[in-house]
Amino acid sequence: MKYEDIREAAYEANMQLPKLGLVLFTFGNVSAVDRDLGVFAIKPSGVPYEELSPKKMVIVDFNANIVEGKLRPSSDTKTHAVLYKQWEKIGGIVHTHSTYATAWAQSQRDIPIFGTTHADHNTVDIPCAPPMSDEMIKGDYEHETGFQIINCFKEKGLNYEEVEMVLVGNHAPFTWGKTPEKAVYNSAVLETVAQMALLTERINPNAPRLKDALIRKHYERKHGPDSYYGQ
Amino acid sequence: MKYEDIREAAYEANMQLPKLGLVLFTFGNVSAVDRDLGVFAIKPSGVPYEELSPKKMVIVDFNANIVEGKLRPSSDTKTHAVLYKQWEKIGGIVHTHSTYATAWAQSQRDIPIFGTTHADHNTVDIPCAPPMSDEMIKGDYEHETGFQIINCFKEKGLNYEEVEMVLVGNHAPFTWGKTPEKAVYNSAVLETVAQMALLTERINPNAPRLKDALIRKHYERKHGPDSYYGQ
Amino acid sequence: MKYEDIREAAYEANMQLPKLGLVLFTFGNVSAVDRDLGVFAIKPSGVPYEELSPKKMVIVDFNANIVEGKLRPSSDTKTHAVLYKQWEKIGGIVHTHSTYATAWAQSQRDIPIFGTTHADHNTVDIPCAPPMSDEMIKGDYEHETGFQIINCFKEKGLNYEEVEMVLVGNHAPFTWGKTPEKAVYNSAVLETVAQMALLTERINPNAPRLKDALIRKHYERKHGPDSYYGQ
Amino acid sequence: MKYEDIREAAYEANMQLPKLGLVLFTFGNVSAVDRDLGVFAIKPSGVPYEELSPKKMVIVDFNANIVEGKLRPSSDTKTHAVLYKQWEKIGGIVHTHSTYATAWAQSQRDIPIFGTTHADHNTVDIPCAPPMSDEMIKGDYEHETGFQIINCFKEKGLNYEEVEMVLVGNHAPFTWGKTPEKAVYNSAVLETVAQMALLTERINPNAPRLKDALIRKHYERKHGPDSYYGQ
Repeated sequence: MKYEDIREAAYEANMQLPKLGLVLFTFGNVSAVDRDLGVFAIKPSGVPYEELSPKKMVIVDFNANIVEGKLRPSSDTKTHAVLYKQWEKIGGIVHTHSTYATAWAQSQRDIPIFGTTHADHNTVDIPCAPPMSDEMIKGDYEHETGFQIINCFKEKGLNYEEVEMVLVGNHAPFTWGKTPEKAVYNSAVLETVAQMALLTERINPNAPRLKDALIRKHYERKHGPDSYYGQ
Repeated sequence: MKYEDIREAAYEANMQLPKLGLVLFTFGNVSAVDRDLGVFAIKPSGVPYEELSPKKMVIVDFNANIVEGKLRPSSDTKTHAVLYKQWEKIGGIVHTHSTYATAWAQSQRDIPIFGTTHADHNTVDIPCAPPMSDEMIKGDYEHETGFQIINCFKEKGLNYEEVEMVLVGNHAPFTWGKTPEKAVYNSAVLETVAQMALLTERINPNAPRLKDALIRKHYERKHGPDSYYGQ
Repeated sequence: MKYEDIREAAYEANMQLPKLGLVLFTFGNVSAVDRDLGVFAIKPSGVPYEELSPKKMVIVDFNANIVEGKLRPSSDTKTHAVLYKQWEKIGGIVHTHSTYATAWAQSQRDIPIFGTTHADHNTVDIPCAPPMSDEMIKGDYEHETGFQIINCFKEKGLNYEEVEMVLVGNHAPFTWGKTPEKAVYNSAVLETVAQMALLTERINPNAPRLKDALIRKHYERKHGPDSYYGQ
Repeated sequence: MKYEDIREAAYEANMQLPKLGLVLFTFGNVSAVDRDLGVFAIKPSGVPYEELSPKKMVIVDFNANIVEGKLRPSSDTKTHAVLYKQWEKIGGIVHTHSTYATAWAQSQRDIPIFGTTHADHNTVDIPCAPPMSDEMIKGDYEHETGFQIINCFKEKGLNYEEVEMVLVGNHAPFTWGKTPEKAVYNSAVLETVAQMALLTERINPNAPRLKDALIRKHYERKHGPDSYYGQ
């Protein structure tokens, strides 16, 4: 009974993915963390969304050991575990293969900040972590995927509380947030920003990045002490 | 009770945006004006469409002061206020981040008039206002956005009663009309015209603009004393 | 009562357009002909699809005179009238501004025959009639649009019973068929073929046209004395 | 009664095609095999999906002779028959004209392996069989289509149990699998992979193929003795 809240939260957040058009079949997963108990609830591997229930969520600790649940957890569980362990203030994580974000990941390019839709959520280009070395891939792959993301943020000097999304080169996006709902929201925003950026470069191959004053202004409308967006 | 009509009109028009596929989450807003009372009803900021009701619309005057309503109005309220104040014959305004129109705005290009779908609604390229100066951005941003739109129309010699749509460079589209319904209609038309123009340039990078005789003919079919479209 | 059949047929066919994603708002119309009575039923101008009924269809003769009906007929009525008058074996006509077909029309290019999806329905590139001369546009515009289509077929040596679709340059597609249902079917096929051709050129700018043996084979599978598609 | 199982399986799998957005009108078909009885059930030709029922499926043997059923089988029946005869472990076959996969087929290019979405299902580029010779086309066309696919696999050294999809040049995709459901799943995966690959080349014309270590890793996550995806 003590995992009921995160089971419910993970279930509700997972069910948003097909509604938002972010997944085909089972190509995605969401987890919800309980920081006090040191565990998170995550989608079982390969189970279709229409067959999910809160009960079927798998409870796992930060070393990716199963704590409760009869099903095998998502094959990406170790990546979630590493991110929860290293980044102590995130409450939910999402992984999808959404079409446009995945195309950027396959292209191994950061998504340039071209407009205010992007700037409302991030002050920087969406980072694309490079593909892993062969040693990392042959090793504990999903575990290393987590470190690849964290190293990318270190090298680029990014703060995971400000930038809540990343592309893993050749692979696909991960997003996170203070809650699982916010992490899902970020996945949908990322997909839209990815599509708009692709179209922008089609219309104008020399489209300039957004100017700093606009980046700052739009981000501060939604974030920080002087924000005035929302209720 | 005296604001009931515009509350209802603004509510109905806002609810059209998700139905027409023009918004993700809360990335858009519609307002409806009452010229006699000198106020307009606008969507509250950051409230999901499924939670809206006529009652939740915020009543604001042309200086963007709240006249009635418990919720904070859209963060774009000052832009609406400036447009209503300066352009005395518009009855409704829409702002969205619809995908293709926003991509053109990010590209900082006017949308060329390539065909009759465009000419049925406008005789000119859809204007893209340049990004604002840093001073304007750091100042009263949303207020200045309104003036940026108005200045763009002045410089290009456009009439807001004939051209009811604009792209704000790096940002996204605004549309308006004699009624909120017409303003929403214009947002959907703009999105379609934006997509068709992008595709046209993909198929033929040298596609010519529509010839003047066709521009004139199609516009007059739908507008002016000799129009013969509709009932 | 004597027009009931074509009223019903035109109504049913018109209602297919929004279902098939071929129209935004009222940007399209279908007509159904009664050859014995020398009249056709056509959508009233500017009336939203959800408000249509068989009763609201307008009955018009081949000179585009209204025979029965209280509403003004589609602004494209004269184009339909010319085509029915000149091409004696067509039973229904459709006009839309469907996205991809319209983009090709705006590009003023024929749609190349790249594959069997195209060849199942046509043995030639989908013709794009050139934009009209200024005199034709300033004259009886919709009447002349009909002749522009017919002249295009004459010049290219095409048979309207074999090729049931055309792009009008800078404007949009028209399709037709032995019945209104077939004409609607052709509009949906055209939109798909138009999208596939655009994508094909993106993937391979040097993609070759389909070879003659395949064109012939696929067309004969569906048409002619030795066809073996369908029941 | 003895064909009830494959009738039902073929019916259910066919009905998935419109739900997954893989077909327009009747442009697709699925078959389900009974290896013990040496027959398969296949969609009748040209019958709309909404009118299908298990009863209407046609039972055919591996020489494409009708064994039971009042309707004419799919015009692609001989292609299915050849594949069942030659490849003894497949349980279901799907043919569609899905938009992106067909565009690649029309482009006559293999789909490069750009990311893990692709690698989760295939370790190689999706093969595109060249268009057939004129003799093959004029001969027993659908029969030869089957051999064209099989010859393509022979020449490229591919194993039909590992690679369960192919593009037929200028035509469209075929997919298969141990069950009809798996074959349908493969058609949807192929369409997504085809769209992502097209977008990847738009974003970065020099996007590299996926590195071998990642190809191997992702495929083994889902397939083989050490797989750990799913339950």
